[in-house]
Amino acid sequence: MADRLVVVGGNGAGMSAASQARRLDPGLEIVVLEAGRQTSYSNCGFPFVIGGQVDSLDQLVVRTPAEARHEFNIDARIGHRVEELDLAQGDLEVRDLSRRRSYRLRFDQLVLATGAKPRRPDIPGIDLPHVHGIQTFAQAEGLVSALDQTRLSGGRAGAAAVVVGAGYIGLEMAEALCRLGLRVTVVTSTPEVMPSLDSDVGALVTKAMRSRGIQVQCGTEVEGIEEKAVVTAQGLVPADLVVLGAGVSPDVDLADGAGIEIGPSGAIGVNARMHSAVDAVWAAGDCAESFHLVSRRAVHVALGTVANKQGKVAGTNLGGGYATFPGVLGTAVTGICEVEVARTGLNSTEAAEAGLAWAEAAVKSTLRPGYMPDPGSITIKMLAERRTGRLLGCQIVGSKGAAKRIDTVAVALSTGMSGEELAGVDMSYSPHVSPLWDPVLIAARRVAEAAGRASN
Amino acid sequence: MADRLVVVGGNGAGMSAASQARRLDPGLEIVVLEAGRQTSYSNCGFPFVIGGQVDSLDQLVVRTPAEARHEFNIDARIGHRVEELDLAQGDLEVRDLSRRRSYRLRFDQLVLATGAKPRRPDIPGIDLPHVHGIQTFAQAEGLVSALDQTRLSGGRAGAAAVVVGAGYIGLEMAEALCRLGLRVTVVTSTPEVMPSLDSDVGALVTKAMRSRGIQVQCGTEVEGIEEKAVVTAQGLVPADLVVLGAGVSPDVDLADGAGIEIGPSGAIGVNARMHSAVDAVWAAGDCAESFHLVSRRAVHVALGTVANKQGKVAGTNLGGGYATFPGVLGTAVTGICEVEVARTGLNSTEAAEAGLAWAEAAVKSTLRPGYMPDPGSITIKMLAERRTGRLLGCQIVGSKGAAKRIDTVAVALSTGMSGEELAGVDMSYSPHVSPLWDPVLIAARRVAEAAGRASN
Repeated sequence: MADRLVVVGGNGAGMSAASQARRLDPGLEIVVLEAGRQTSYSNCGFPFVIGGQVDSLDQLVVRTPAEARHEFNIDARIGHRVEELDLAQGDLEVRDLSRRRSYRLRFDQLVLATGAKPRRPDIPGIDLPHVHGIQTFAQAEGLVSALDQTRLSGGRAGAAAVVVGAGYIGLEMAEALCRLGLRVTVVTSTPEVMPSLDSDVGALVTKAMRSRGIQVQCGTEVEGIEEKAVVTAQGLVPADLVVLGAGVSPDVDLADGAGIEIGPSGAIGVNARMHSAVDAVWAAGDCAESFHLVSRRAVHVALGTVANKQGKVAGTNLGGGYATFPGVLGTAVTGICEVEVARTGLNSTEAAEAGLAWAEAAVKSTLRPGYMPDPGSITIKMLAERRTGRLLGCQIVGSKGAAKRIDTVAVALSTGMSGEELAGVDMSYSPHVSPLWDPVLIAARRVAEAAGRASN
Repeated sequence: MADRLVVVGGNGAGMSAASQARRLDPGLEIVVLEAGRQTSYSNCGFPFVIGGQVDSLDQLVVRTPAEARHEFNIDARIGHRVEELDLAQGDLEVRDLSRRRSYRLRFDQLVLATGAKPRRPDIPGIDLPHVHGIQTFAQAEGLVSALDQTRLSGGRAGAAAVVVGAGYIGLEMAEALCRLGLRVTVVTSTPEVMPSLDSDVGALVTKAMRSRGIQVQCGTEVEGIEEKAVVTAQGLVPADLVVLGAGVSPDVDLADGAGIEIGPSGAIGVNARMHSAVDAVWAAGDCAESFHLVSRRAVHVALGTVANKQGKVAGTNLGGGYATFPGVLGTAVTGICEVEVARTGLNSTEAAEAGLAWAEAAVKSTLRPGYMPDPGSITIKMLAERRTGRLLGCQIVGSKGAAKRIDTVAVALSTGMSGEELAGVDMSYSPHVSPLWDPVLIAARRVAEAAGRASN
């Protein structure tokens, strides 16, 4: 009898693991258990559906359960929720939600790809029906449906939405809701929006959102949620709709319940092959831990790129191949209210937490020569370690075309380059796409000089 | 008496050398000798003036001779042409073109920044007045003036232009002239336009130009130029105007005349500090040689980025500091007829010339997820060395936003990364700016696999 691989969770990491295992091992029995009604969808696309640039959530589905079955011979069971993992027995307790029955499913190998869940502040009213997470397909459907009701009641234009927290997806949702005509307020306890940026860089994003007509209340704690308002220390903020936008936590309930080791980041601990501390159990995606290549610490990074790569690594190993996940830099990018935002490596807070001493430099430049019709703008901040000059991180805010420059720094960070070395790279120039000295080169030069001055 | 630094050539390399030397050494006497009427201008901006997106050539001037004098105390002499270099005497014969007199100028240190000149095929009619180089400010002025006359005579819409050769600037000029309403034909002896690309990639550019209405005759030798036509083996091509677009050669007449060593690439041989083989003589920019970081050979790369960097390195050393030029990758980018084009490292021809064996992979992808309103497109080709998997080069053709990805590969090439390593980099993803798997990652993975298969 063929070995049975069971994957818990049918989004990016889980389906990548399943399909990659299938590519390498045609004989494996593969079962994917997914509580929701869809597999392999782009969570990152939700704001575009909400904002109306993409017609429907179904367009975000890369591969339906039926396609997984036909193309990859994967037994993808949607509406099947895993309720318990029994390591001693090597099986799972599964609830078939549509047939309202439970069954046990034995596995030879298990991949936990249970994803993440929105952070829910522990405040009164957090479970009210107008409070929406935006992490899963079902949550996105809930929000779409709520917005449709708002529209049907004729109230969308006047309706008020509050985004609690100011992470990437929260801000993208704020813009999407603003685009629909809602009055939108972002309430965050952080000094500026987007706490993964240093606050001097985050301030540029705060400013861009305000200039788009979005209310932003920074440094504001949310104390409770009522049916028509969010309660803050500074008073009530009207809210027909509340979106949880303060990021996510790894969903490790199943693993934790089974006694599988949870790492220091709060996510499931794994080695480079995505194997957990327990025999036959693997983990990948938003529920699994990553190794940060700059801080050299275990971190939790819930991003689609990481999830898909980790899933593929797990699948390769489960299919009989050999692959390791090289680690993360925390690279992320988004576009909000006409500005592009990106970051990689460590910000100041993370560098301090890692015990590193650094120098920094921020450069404001155009994206094309000043004589061009639309020169654009970019602010780029870099951190480099004192003494060694090794680059530690980079943050970018700018107009269209600015953000993808972050990848050049990601490559540099991957190889431990210094600012001096990056400043010497033969990068491309044409007035179409950059000034003669690309802003990345200028920032690298400046941070190298700053690290040199602070080298003692 | 202060030492006198004389710089021959007042564009990017020369003025960078002069201003950087001044920053480090306030006491130095600095004289820049420039035959033309302008200093420090962006040659790369010429096509935008010709095409009408930028109003005038003067907008391309970064720093006028007067500004160089006031801001940097540099004695910038325009209209002064250097006619002879006497190494034994340590002086120059200079012709003051406006006063029509000659004088000799002693130097303690000399920087040759004499630039490059358009390749002029040795054919009848090449010196006719309607044949235009587009390398210097004066040449650009000549072309602007010719176009104005065409317009004044009411004939621009019907006028015909031929670009001989299909290098970057030639093609940019072809598009600019097309934009003005001229009938434009590009005639090139190469199999496709843009011979710095492999022909399978160049073919995409040829196609884009044709779809814009530009005639392109590849594999066609130009045999002569007449007053109203270009003569080819395939017949006459109407030409009220001819533009030399087959690239440039280093202008080494002055150095060669003085017996200074010319390197294997035909440019002035220099060490990493931009010092020539002769005491007290330095060279930088389009007239100087570079070291190619991938082929590990001397090459001639005439690009503004390289020129400015080399000038700055020479100036640092002349000002009493220490700097070395790290070498080139031949990174270049342009935008032509709605497509962006970029390259770095070695193409197939260059890899073969360097004696390397390689595997290659080409990937066609979107620039954003398929569900987005405008997903865009990109074709990316990578070369990696057999056995080692070391990346050798990359070529990109795609829609707006595609080309700057070349810089990620440039960073990778600078550090000798393999395709496998680049494929593992934590690059950024958001539906605004990329698909989940960035095309660079996919191409790196594919070329790593191809190199692995060809590893014997």
